[in-house]
Amino acid sequence: MKVAVVRELWEHERRVAMVPDLVGKLTGAGLDVVVESGAGEPALHSDEEYTAAGASIAQGSALDDADIVFSVQPLGPDRIAALKPGAITVSFLPLDERETIRAARDAGVTAFSVELVPRISRAQSMDALTSQALVAGYHAVLTAAERLPRFFPLSMTAAGTIPPAEVLVLGAGVAGLQAIATARRLGARVQAYDVRAAAADEIRSLGARFVELDLPTLDGTGGYAREMTEERAQQQRDLLAPYVTGSDVLITTAAVPGRTAPLLVERSTVERMKPGSVVVDIAAETGGNVEGSIPGEEINVGGALLCGGRNVPSQVPVHASRLYASNLVNLLLLMTHEGDVSVDLDDEIIAGVCVTHDGTVRNSHARELLGEAD
Amino acid sequence: MKVAVVRELWEHERRVAMVPDLVGKLTGAGLDVVVESGAGEPALHSDEEYTAAGASIAQGSALDDADIVFSVQPLGPDRIAALKPGAITVSFLPLDERETIRAARDAGVTAFSVELVPRISRAQSMDALTSQALVAGYHAVLTAAERLPRFFPLSMTAAGTIPPAEVLVLGAGVAGLQAIATARRLGARVQAYDVRAAAADEIRSLGARFVELDLPTLDGTGGYAREMTEERAQQQRDLLAPYVTGSDVLITTAAVPGRTAPLLVERSTVERMKPGSVVVDIAAETGGNVEGSIPGEEINVGGALLCGGRNVPSQVPVHASRLYASNLVNLLLLMTHEGDVSVDLDDEIIAGVCVTHDGTVRNSHARELLGEAD
Repeated sequence: MKVAVVRELWEHERRVAMVPDLVGKLTGAGLDVVVESGAGEPALHSDEEYTAAGASIAQGSALDDADIVFSVQPLGPDRIAALKPGAITVSFLPLDERETIRAARDAGVTAFSVELVPRISRAQSMDALTSQALVAGYHAVLTAAERLPRFFPLSMTAAGTIPPAEVLVLGAGVAGLQAIATARRLGARVQAYDVRAAAADEIRSLGARFVELDLPTLDGTGGYAREMTEERAQQQRDLLAPYVTGSDVLITTAAVPGRTAPLLVERSTVERMKPGSVVVDIAAETGGNVEGSIPGEEINVGGALLCGGRNVPSQVPVHASRLYASNLVNLLLLMTHEGDVSVDLDDEIIAGVCVTHDGTVRNSHARELLGEAD
Repeated sequence: MKVAVVRELWEHERRVAMVPDLVGKLTGAGLDVVVESGAGEPALHSDEEYTAAGASIAQGSALDDADIVFSVQPLGPDRIAALKPGAITVSFLPLDERETIRAARDAGVTAFSVELVPRISRAQSMDALTSQALVAGYHAVLTAAERLPRFFPLSMTAAGTIPPAEVLVLGAGVAGLQAIATARRLGARVQAYDVRAAAADEIRSLGARFVELDLPTLDGTGGYAREMTEERAQQQRDLLAPYVTGSDVLITTAAVPGRTAPLLVERSTVERMKPGSVVVDIAAETGGNVEGSIPGEEINVGGALLCGGRNVPSQVPVHASRLYASNLVNLLLLMTHEGDVSVDLDDEIIAGVCVTHDGTVRNSHARELLGEAD
């Protein structure tokens, strides 16, 4: 069976869904790997590297007779329509991508969304949200450190002692914890907040201070936070404000999958930060944790610099691709036996990631969004 | 007596020669501090902060009746000519700034160059080359890490293990050692080379590997390296090349004060680095350690990104200014007794930094460059 790896079309996508290093895992399982020419270039992998690893290169589209298609971004309805019935796509696939999901249903394509990997230990190696959040949290801190007009670490010099930077991380999921770890590596003093009480120990274990607000916590399912009322959200913003204005760097990472990111920091609070402060809002693409953040732009708000993340994992494309490809390989190998891939919907993981299969939309939230009656 | 702090005129200069925090040290010694309006802005200090600290603000030039003038860049002949005879300037002042030095001589101004602070322990707190090199070495690594398409640290994740980045630092003076320390903080594997054998222990004490080449070492005076023959320089480039091409990140920091920086890496070597590699040449302004580096520009050389440093300390303007101002304050306080500043040329430090005094050029190298007979 043939696994096609596509060239990503979105201009800001620098990742690729397969890396040369991992081709052998698929060919070793009896699968053929075909990579669209140039697919690896934004992630700095040449066609030659894929060939040397045992893949073949397609000069045009690799979709025609593909059994499985790996991509980072959703293929989109046109490319889905080019697939043969029964083909499998594996990619990020937000459930509000109605046109793509409808196209997959109508083409009889099995569309897997790696956003939906269940948070169980057997699926950890397939969890692309986690692997990419790790990259985003790491890089957000470098963005801030590079732009901060101050040192991160405590510096004891002959010309005096410079105190460490004060970093505040809001949201302590995978991205937030990685941001904390990276800021700590660089020597900053770090505080972090999360609505989930369970985050406190993890925050402290990384050497950061847990910010406790006088509010009830909101632990949800699968390690993600639940949504909250607007009144509570406002209280939270008000209580967080003094922590924000006391920081040199603010990194925000709070996301509720499939929903608009919660607004944690008002523009007026950013305006009151010290001149030269740097804010990196990883959640800018899904609405932003910081009022006014714009994906891919760096804007001045008062004396602070507000950097809106846009596809942050793509800023570390080599290793983001390496981890993402590993997630996809692990997921595919779960379904592969003696060179044959079969979709076993009795498997909790396969059922979890399956959006469309055999002409139907199987994910209930996607059905709702499409207006299909249950 | 009045200490004037000027607004820097060079567009790429974001430092200021005095910070509000240190004003009290001068006023406490009986000196008046006058800051040109807006002088602190690029380093994020407002006029109000200076006023609150006990300085006064000059709306135009503060030079007219200044006894001492603090600046980062040399004042230039026009501003020197506006000073009263006997006034003292304290700044960076490269000895090839012939017009400025001639102007200082002719105006009867005492010009101190903080580049010339002797490397003796009593003068450490005044050593501006050291304090600014520390800033440059720190920031060069952040520049590289932010642009590298890979992780710096070893990352053990559910989706596999990512090895640490390989960083090579050439030149292990203050900037190089700080670069090593910062890259190590971020979790990279670091190797470093210096022509001075004495650097080996310092490199190893920071957890980096010392690159030993089959060449004689070149320990010079004052902790700086001596110059070498072109034949030896070519041998060194050839021997270093495999270390360069095996690295993900190259940071070059080799400088011989007052001379053109040594060429350590040829363009053809950079071209053979891995795609996505990042090179930061801190020495770009003085000729560059890497062939083709351009100050302030980021250019692609083969698959690598070559970043030429331009006034690198200015990229961390708050703390670079803090350390620089501290150097200047310590130097001035050495000459201050009961509110009075006097130039004691019997003091080794004062004699060392003094370029012009009382109508004569006192520094012999500056005299040579001006064509004055000894």
